[in-house]
Amino acid sequence: MKILVLGAGQLARMMALAGTPLNLQISAYDVNTDTVVDAISQQKVAHGLTAAIANADVITAEFEHIPLPILDQCQQSGKFLPGAAAIKAGGDRRIEKQLLDAANVQSAAYAIVNTETEFQQAIAELGLPLVFKSALAGYDGKGQWRLKTADQAAALWQDIADFLAADTKQAIVAEKFIPFQREVSLIGARDAKGNISVYPLTENHHVNGVLSTSVIAQASVELQLQAEQIFTKLANSLEYVGVLAIEFFDLKQQLLVNEIAPRVHNSGHWTQQGAEVCQFQLHLRAICGLPLGSTHEIRPTLMVNILGEDTVPTEVLAIAGLQLHWYGKTKRPGRKMGHINLSAANNTELKQQFNQLISLLSPTAFPQLDVMLKQL
Amino acid sequence: MKILVLGAGQLARMMALAGTPLNLQISAYDVNTDTVVDAISQQKVAHGLTAAIANADVITAEFEHIPLPILDQCQQSGKFLPGAAAIKAGGDRRIEKQLLDAANVQSAAYAIVNTETEFQQAIAELGLPLVFKSALAGYDGKGQWRLKTADQAAALWQDIADFLAADTKQAIVAEKFIPFQREVSLIGARDAKGNISVYPLTENHHVNGVLSTSVIAQASVELQLQAEQIFTKLANSLEYVGVLAIEFFDLKQQLLVNEIAPRVHNSGHWTQQGAEVCQFQLHLRAICGLPLGSTHEIRPTLMVNILGEDTVPTEVLAIAGLQLHWYGKTKRPGRKMGHINLSAANNTELKQQFNQLISLLSPTAFPQLDVMLKQL
Repeated sequence: MKILVLGAGQLARMMALAGTPLNLQISAYDVNTDTVVDAISQQKVAHGLTAAIANADVITAEFEHIPLPILDQCQQSGKFLPGAAAIKAGGDRRIEKQLLDAANVQSAAYAIVNTETEFQQAIAELGLPLVFKSALAGYDGKGQWRLKTADQAAALWQDIADFLAADTKQAIVAEKFIPFQREVSLIGARDAKGNISVYPLTENHHVNGVLSTSVIAQASVELQLQAEQIFTKLANSLEYVGVLAIEFFDLKQQLLVNEIAPRVHNSGHWTQQGAEVCQFQLHLRAICGLPLGSTHEIRPTLMVNILGEDTVPTEVLAIAGLQLHWYGKTKRPGRKMGHINLSAANNTELKQQFNQLISLLSPTAFPQLDVMLKQL
Repeated sequence: MKILVLGAGQLARMMALAGTPLNLQISAYDVNTDTVVDAISQQKVAHGLTAAIANADVITAEFEHIPLPILDQCQQSGKFLPGAAAIKAGGDRRIEKQLLDAANVQSAAYAIVNTETEFQQAIAELGLPLVFKSALAGYDGKGQWRLKTADQAAALWQDIADFLAADTKQAIVAEKFIPFQREVSLIGARDAKGNISVYPLTENHHVNGVLSTSVIAQASVELQLQAEQIFTKLANSLEYVGVLAIEFFDLKQQLLVNEIAPRVHNSGHWTQQGAEVCQFQLHLRAICGLPLGSTHEIRPTLMVNILGEDTVPTEVLAIAGLQLHWYGKTKRPGRKMGHINLSAANNTELKQQFNQLISLLSPTAFPQLDVMLKQL
């Protein structure tokens, strides 16, 4: 089978690595350069997007920020999974919020803000503190503002007004600030027959708004069930096919959806070593109509993102249960360059190995890992 | 780093899949077509062998039957690991036997046969039954003859004489027949500093002379140690760098070397799911001067070869702990087309899952799996 992935980054690359053993041929469309490439070697393929759409058996996406005409072209082919509607919801927080409401799934109370009047109304109706998020793009903590006290409102509105003026397509979603205990995410897949298979909840730690580490969460059966029920509601309401990621605020055993990603997700990279079928192959199995297989945990596993660095000390490869995943990308400050998966037979060993890893990594390049270690 | 692999088959492909996450760029030289290709996509690369040798940081091989001028060209580059001598030993049973003798490692008593006189001498000196093996090529049971009784000698010599006449480079190695209990293999790596790391012994089952299944062997600590000692002797005597596979006859807890393969090996495919670092990445780590990491078993795992078939029932993908590995090759009778790895938390579950797998596979395409099941 031939799969075309919209987006040619690390998620397409890891999909291809996981799909090659199933004889799935995976090419990727680089939105920035308008070229079709081999998802692993990045070698340019002889044909363009239209031919790639015609050649593909299935089309999917590795990210949400795809020009709408391309999404529509793919949708019209009848081969696009999870489909343009889900991708658009992932790329526009207004649509996402409507979708959560329509599926009767709880998330933070919100208001859409385009004008100063709407800005003031949001403050009056939702109360402070508030979080303002850009509707489009801006994941990884970009395009976010917090309002804690009323006296900062005027200055903040000026920032937001400038932001809106710079891009007329943008809007702002104001959300009530949620004093959450921790952030967890649930990743799973739904296939065309409605079968659903999810991984254990993952606990995520962010530094400066960017995911730093993920680890299989210590979670009660009830919490896992609660997450699965929300996943099922959402996936069914979207008639979703493929891997879907849901980020939650965990409010002392009650989950509130923060956001959804209609794709494989950074917080699911641990599944490459820690779960039976990894999220990349799970997605491909779902969109190709293959059995989903097992999403069970194999053993305790955590993931550490490598941000803005293109080397780590070679000695880390000597640590038992460690696998290094580089993305083959050019170094840029803060850029997601790769990740480390660390697995062990039990939590005690995982802590020891993580400790060993932390001692080898630069604390400036990998800040706050000790915070996560304490929580293991 | 850039790696050039001599040979562009499934072993190069799986090396590339295991090496890409380490940002190793792996191209492969197809000996049959004299072209350099991407080891995964098989897309032809713009340059030929000489440029590929110049570009590569390290050169290695996925099989032994490589034309000598090419081996010598690679050797002269100073980048070839494990090096021409080891590859030649793997490709010529005469050299292999000399090497085992030189390393003081026990194997079946043998004689080299080029003429009828030598044929008769071998029978007289070694006694019956005897196995005659072609010195060059002919793995997977090809180019082998057995002599059980003296009255069959004249007819057999005629067959062997015809074989030798057809290829003047060939010779025959006559070996005393070993009434072994089972065949096991040890796979491991040695790096340039002399560090050695080996996997648990693997038990192998052949059908019609071709490997059918491999499983982590039930073996005493003493047997594992005996195998490791032989591995160490051989690898050190060759100053070997990379993955080396040794096949043994197990004579009730005493090991006799059957043959060696200076490369990743079919009986090590289970390590992709069953061991910390799989044999493909282990080989790359060794030849690139990276830490070898852990070769420990993660959990009970077995492998089933897919021979001559380009499909299996899709339902096998629903079995927990099952991973399917296709090689992207065109179907031919008996050809190694892919393999299945099956893992479980314990042996009881592994048996259950294997039973489930056997019930889904055609017994003509996958003969004698039940024999192996009983031995689990």
